[in-house]
Amino acid sequence: MVRTGNEGQPVRVAVLGAGNVGGALVRLLLDDPEGIAERSGVRLELLAVAVSDPARERPGIPTALVTGDAKALVTDPGVDVVVELIGGIDPARELIEAALAAGKPVVTGNKALLAAHGAALAAAAAEAGVDLLYEAAVAGAIPIIRPLRESLAGEKVRRVMGIVNGTTNYILTTMAEEGLPYDEVLAEAQRLGLAEKDPTADVDGHDAAAKAAILAGLAFRCDVVDGDVYREGIARVTPLDIAFADRLGYVVKLLAVAERAGGEELSVRVHPAMVPKTHPLASVRGSFNAVFIEGDSAGELMLYGRGAGGVPTASAVLGDLIDAAHNLLAGSAAPAPARARARLQPIDEIRSAYYLSIEVADRPGVLAAVATVFGDHGVSIRSMEQQGLGDEARLVFLTHLAREGDVRATLAGLEALPAVDLVGGVLRVVGDEDGAGR
Amino acid sequence: MVRTGNEGQPVRVAVLGAGNVGGALVRLLLDDPEGIAERSGVRLELLAVAVSDPARERPGIPTALVTGDAKALVTDPGVDVVVELIGGIDPARELIEAALAAGKPVVTGNKALLAAHGAALAAAAAEAGVDLLYEAAVAGAIPIIRPLRESLAGEKVRRVMGIVNGTTNYILTTMAEEGLPYDEVLAEAQRLGLAEKDPTADVDGHDAAAKAAILAGLAFRCDVVDGDVYREGIARVTPLDIAFADRLGYVVKLLAVAERAGGEELSVRVHPAMVPKTHPLASVRGSFNAVFIEGDSAGELMLYGRGAGGVPTASAVLGDLIDAAHNLLAGSAAPAPARARARLQPIDEIRSAYYLSIEVADRPGVLAAVATVFGDHGVSIRSMEQQGLGDEARLVFLTHLAREGDVRATLAGLEALPAVDLVGGVLRVVGDEDGAGR
Repeated sequence: MVRTGNEGQPVRVAVLGAGNVGGALVRLLLDDPEGIAERSGVRLELLAVAVSDPARERPGIPTALVTGDAKALVTDPGVDVVVELIGGIDPARELIEAALAAGKPVVTGNKALLAAHGAALAAAAAEAGVDLLYEAAVAGAIPIIRPLRESLAGEKVRRVMGIVNGTTNYILTTMAEEGLPYDEVLAEAQRLGLAEKDPTADVDGHDAAAKAAILAGLAFRCDVVDGDVYREGIARVTPLDIAFADRLGYVVKLLAVAERAGGEELSVRVHPAMVPKTHPLASVRGSFNAVFIEGDSAGELMLYGRGAGGVPTASAVLGDLIDAAHNLLAGSAAPAPARARARLQPIDEIRSAYYLSIEVADRPGVLAAVATVFGDHGVSIRSMEQQGLGDEARLVFLTHLAREGDVRATLAGLEALPAVDLVGGVLRVVGDEDGAGR
Repeated sequence: MVRTGNEGQPVRVAVLGAGNVGGALVRLLLDDPEGIAERSGVRLELLAVAVSDPARERPGIPTALVTGDAKALVTDPGVDVVVELIGGIDPARELIEAALAAGKPVVTGNKALLAAHGAALAAAAAEAGVDLLYEAAVAGAIPIIRPLRESLAGEKVRRVMGIVNGTTNYILTTMAEEGLPYDEVLAEAQRLGLAEKDPTADVDGHDAAAKAAILAGLAFRCDVVDGDVYREGIARVTPLDIAFADRLGYVVKLLAVAERAGGEELSVRVHPAMVPKTHPLASVRGSFNAVFIEGDSAGELMLYGRGAGGVPTASAVLGDLIDAAHNLLAGSAAPAPARARARLQPIDEIRSAYYLSIEVADRPGVLAAVATVFGDHGVSIRSMEQQGLGDEARLVFLTHLAREGDVRATLAGLEALPAVDLVGGVLRVVGDEDGAGR
């Protein structure tokens, strides 16, 4: 308990936004304020909820609490803490800036805003001497921001890898478990409400890239924005790639990866990857999320749970809100060291093992020609499998560790061979880079 | 960053104990103080290391830092924070009490002490207005104490289940993967240094019970001591039980379970259990640890990593040390609400599904007699499998949810039947209590 004699004083909360997460948070705050106070040692009092359309009925939200004037609310002297759950850049950014400038701690779940302007907002919070907390911005209910920021504050992190988008993990899991093609599974996910009508943000990796930027910034104490993140989506992953991966002992996952490259450089990227079945990330199924952390001292850690959904995400907001309230009563704030701009490794420079699948004419000399292309670009083959397809053959390769630029040159060289009909799946292998298994 | 103008001021640390974890912590602190300061925003200065035998050479620990007088060190005005890594009850308890009374925050990894006297120590810390932090006491490097205390401060937790002892998880994993008996795997683990010469604390569940008490206290904000914890070890688990579990879709794990029972009661227990293969805990192999949390709002969470080892555990201590240093500079302390004594449910009252294996004479009427015993005690059978063994037969049952007292009465009834030769394995089924799978 903070020892300021303020224990009994209620902390007055303004919530901006009453959508999926905002609505769930309001219900949590109103349903059991005594329970929250008893468990947390802090009394939270919901003062107002700002929405764009205050006339609309919202079940569970008393109209007396609703206002249309978010701008006035964030500087209202009666408000102690501001929770921003509107999402998007504008007007969320100005509202958060106004709240911080007015000396109010802010809790937000706004990954797009943090991935674009996180460093400026953190600096504004530090300047004002108040908290800016955002556990809900990455992987919903899973405690990941606080462990990275506090538990691992002294740790030299080597790599963070996450399954941070539930929609794509659901699609890939279903493709694998039911052997169905991408389009069909996506359509079914849309029918079930597990994917948006316009699924671009999820399936093209934009959502995961924003989270990768936030995780990279925290893990490596630097400023990474979403535009820094190399990005590939899952639309080109085929059931055939997944079946081959399965036979080779892997599953296919969309991963957000942030790791120390050589020297001072970081590699931050989002792409589908082959993960060994024995790796803890391989068992993360359906719409669940998980973040896997490798540290010099801590070793391997994984944090797993519900990455989305109104109530789970609201639970993460509530944890931050209690933290902000405690700090406010104690007159302190969470540490937020200033961050330098990250130096990013170009994607061509990363080193990875690769899975490649190509279709070739099934005649003498073709395999030699193909192997020569690999050799010419210094890409060493770890294993190869040939499958007959009538007049054609499918060749599936796993490479040893190789430079991405060399693999791309190899692909271009293969495409230029007359005997090669199709360069199909290309997947990076993550989690047993040395090919030695786990 | 705490805004007190104290950012540059070093925080002077005294470490008690230079064993496996203490030695690793000292090396972390001495190897890269600048790196830690840069990453965490706080400068930690190792002032002294107290050991019982100061004359002994300790590689990596300068003799100038070593003292034999722990008692003087913990009240030394030059010391800002005390780290206790001696272990055991005495003298750790008096030293921690003296440090707290002198107004010094304490970081400890002492599970035995916390499980026996945690509430009194927490009260002493609250009285002194300083931190008592103990991330390293449960599951080594895995951030579990801080997420439970902070991220889930407002959460209504339903259940916490953990694989919190690496030795027993290594033994059970190896028994399963290599089909070997308990004694043989234990002996091999002892040869490899993965089990102690006297393995009692691990294999009989004492270590896990201490951690269960600590987790239960945090998750349910009450006082639970190790003596409250119902406890069964792994010595009676056979390769046959594990093979049956496998065929039925389960793995066998030693679990620490703390859950809300009816009303105000908690059930806190340690025992081997059958966990569905699709449950995230099932994929925790070898000496890894994991804690699975079920909350009303957050849903299912799992935190996974290295549960032991000097360096990983020291990394958890370092995280706490940085937290304590930040709080000290800010003049605040982590909230530590007072806790009431827990009300515990007697083991006979828990409800679970059960796996039972018995050997019977293979003759007409035996199955009817056996089934009658189940029925007489109100234990409903979910599935049964019979396996011939010459003149005998092995019967393996899975029950629906049943009261433990009724299952024990059933077992006594079975043992009394002339046709029953052996009541073998009994395992609680955890993770799909309704038998519906996940």
